[in-house]
Parts: sequence; C-alpha cells; structure tokens
Amino acid sequence: MAVAELCLFPLGTGSPSVGEYLKPVIRVIEESGLKYRLCPMGTVVEGSVDEILELVKRCHEAIFNAGAERVVISLRIDDRTDKPLTIEGKMRV
Amino acid sequence: MAVAELCLFPLGTGSPSVGEYLKPVIRVIEESGLKYRLCPMGTVVEGSVDEILELVKRCHEAIFNAGAERVVISLRIDDRTDKPLTIEGKMRV
Amino acid sequence: MAVAELCLFPLGTGSPSVGEYLKPVIRVIEESGLKYRLCPMGTVVEGSVDEILELVKRCHEAIFNAGAERVVISLRIDDRTDKPLTIEGKMRV
Amino acid sequence: MAVAELCLFPLGTGSPSVGEYLKPVIRVIEESGLKYRLCPMGTVVEGSVDEILELVKRCHEAIFNAGAERVVISLRIDDRTDKPLTIEGKMRV
Repeated sequence: MAVAELCLFPLGTGSPSVGEYLKPVIRVIEESGLKYRLCPMGTVVEGSVDEILELVKRCHEAIFNAGAERVVISLRIDDRTDKPLTIEGKMRV
Repeated sequence: MAVAELCLFPLGTGSPSVGEYLKPVIRVIEESGLKYRLCPMGTVVEGSVDEILELVKRCHEAIFNAGAERVVISLRIDDRTDKPLTIEGKMRV
Repeated sequence: MAVAELCLFPLGTGSPSVGEYLKPVIRVIEESGLKYRLCPMGTVVEGSVDEILELVKRCHEAIFNAGAERVVISLRIDDRTDKPLTIEGKMRV
Repeated sequence: MAVAELCLFPLGTGSPSVGEYLKPVIRVIEESGLKYRLCPMGTVVEGSVDEILELVKRCHEAIFNAGAERVVISLRIDDRTDKPLTIEGKMRV
C-alpha cells in the first residue's frame, strides 16, 4: 500500500472560494472505496499506486465536469517495499 | 493568516525509515508557537507568511543538525486577502 | 494536452547522490514517446492526463526495479480546456 | 548553495490565463540577482536557503500587489552539505 496526498486547484473561476469545484472531487474520493482522510491542505488516500492513479484520473474528470476551465493537480505519493505504509502509520513520526 | 503544509525528505540516510531526522523538526514546529496539525503527508501550520518562512528556515537547520546530508523541503502556502484563512476553516470544503 | 512535472526521490539510499536510481526513470520517459524536457528540479512532460498517469506508473516501477526501497513521487499536472497547453507555450509567461 | 523551484497560482481570477499576475513575480526574481532559470512548470533559483526564502516573501508580495486575492505558492528546495548544488549540476542526472 502507498499513501498519497492529492490537491486540486481550479484557476480562473472568478471567485477565490473554490469549494463548489472541490465537492464533486471529494465525492469521487468517498465513492472510490479507498481509505482516505481530509486534511487542511489536501486529501490523503491509501491504496496501491494503480488505485491512486486511477483515482486521480476520476478526480480530474470530476473537477472539469464541475465547470473548471483550468486545473492544477498536485499529487505526492509515498511508497515503500520494506514495510507496510498506512495513513495511521504515517501519523507516528 | 496563511495556511501552509511543510514536508521534509532527508536523502541518503541509509535506511528508508527517516523518523529520527523528523523528530527534531516536529520539536521546532511545536516550539514555534504557531498553530499546527500533524498530517499523514506533512505538517500543516497557520501563521503569517513571514512566520511560516521563518519556521521553514529553522526546520531546515534542525534536519541538517540531526545529521542529514541532503534534504528536499516541500512547502505549499495558501494565502488570501478577501477573508481569513485558518486550519479549521480549510477542513470544511 | 496537459503539461506535468514529475520528480522522484528515493529515500534510504546509502548515498545522497541518487542519479543511479533516476537514470532508468529518464529512460522510461524517453521511451514513452511523449514530448519531455529535463529541468533542474524534475522532468516536464506533455500529453493527455491518461498518458501522464500511465507514465507515472512506469516510472514508479522503474525506480523500484533500480533497487529503491522507498520513493516519494511528486507530480503536478496543469490542464485546461479553454485553449491548448504545451511545454513551449508554458515557457512564455 | 541550494536549488529551489517556485510556482505561484493565483485563484479566483476572472480568466484561466494568469500571466499578468506572474509577470511582476518574474521581475522580482530577475531583480533578486540570484541565478535562475524559467521552466515550463515554475522558476528554478539557486542561492542560500535564506536568499530563497527572502525571494519567496517578495514574490508573495508582488502577486498580491498585482491584484490577486488568493494565491497558492509551491516551493521545493533541494539542499545538501556533502557537495555543491547548482542549477547546472542538477541538469546532469
């Protein structure tokens, strides 16, 4: 399992408040069945790299479907083979 | 107030487990007096941009003092002038 | 077409110099057929979001095959529907 | 010397094209005297961590002075103590 953080920023929306574009994205993450945690600067998900990349693809579709004309997507994946990686485990430094 | 996420990755440490390098960084964040939240993929802090950049400087010193030879620091700041931004507020999409 | 920047950081290697882990990744990017540009802090590629995510998957495999035990992958995608986006175009501010 | 990549995304502008907000930022970087390179996904600068953080502060001011109401700033710093780090050097994998 890998752990990843995903953030999407719609540009050119006319208002600095972009929640209406992010709500459908959160819904896609909820419906993915992956373990996730909403954080102040992005959403953290737990899954295989394949599952995470598939989720990014669906979030990308969802935000354009919500009317965004331009989107910056930031993804950071942490993966390791020597021991299991989980959202819970990564909370303990 | 801005909200920022800070992540530090020491490279070349010999072991994929890097917690011993991050503990002194967390201590620096705790002692900064800034409001913060530990998240699975980084630490989120709330403060002015000046305070956040000063904190990044001290975290950078702390991880090299902990013995790291190379470090990648990732910082993402969200700031707005039209209304207040807080860690709590950013949890509500 | 979207434009994306991809960076991979192997953690826990014996040396802070990680070029040997990145060479196979660069080869995967070259062989993808996508337009790309090597930059000081990462590699920029141009393609559809599907092509970019498929490339991330192959780069992830390549760096673990090169012997990395833990990897942080950072990806930032810029995509827009209102006009074409290219590496060349993004060089003109 | 550290090498860093800096990207600024103004949110809530009337158009998905945000070049008018970025031009004053590029001017600040040019006037900093730091060695820099414009890249498709951000600007790469070379300097001490103090110089880089001071530059981030001035870029942050410049983009709000240009009329942005909300800005996401993404900064990634690569620093090492075991050998010199330069923009040129980082082009050779």
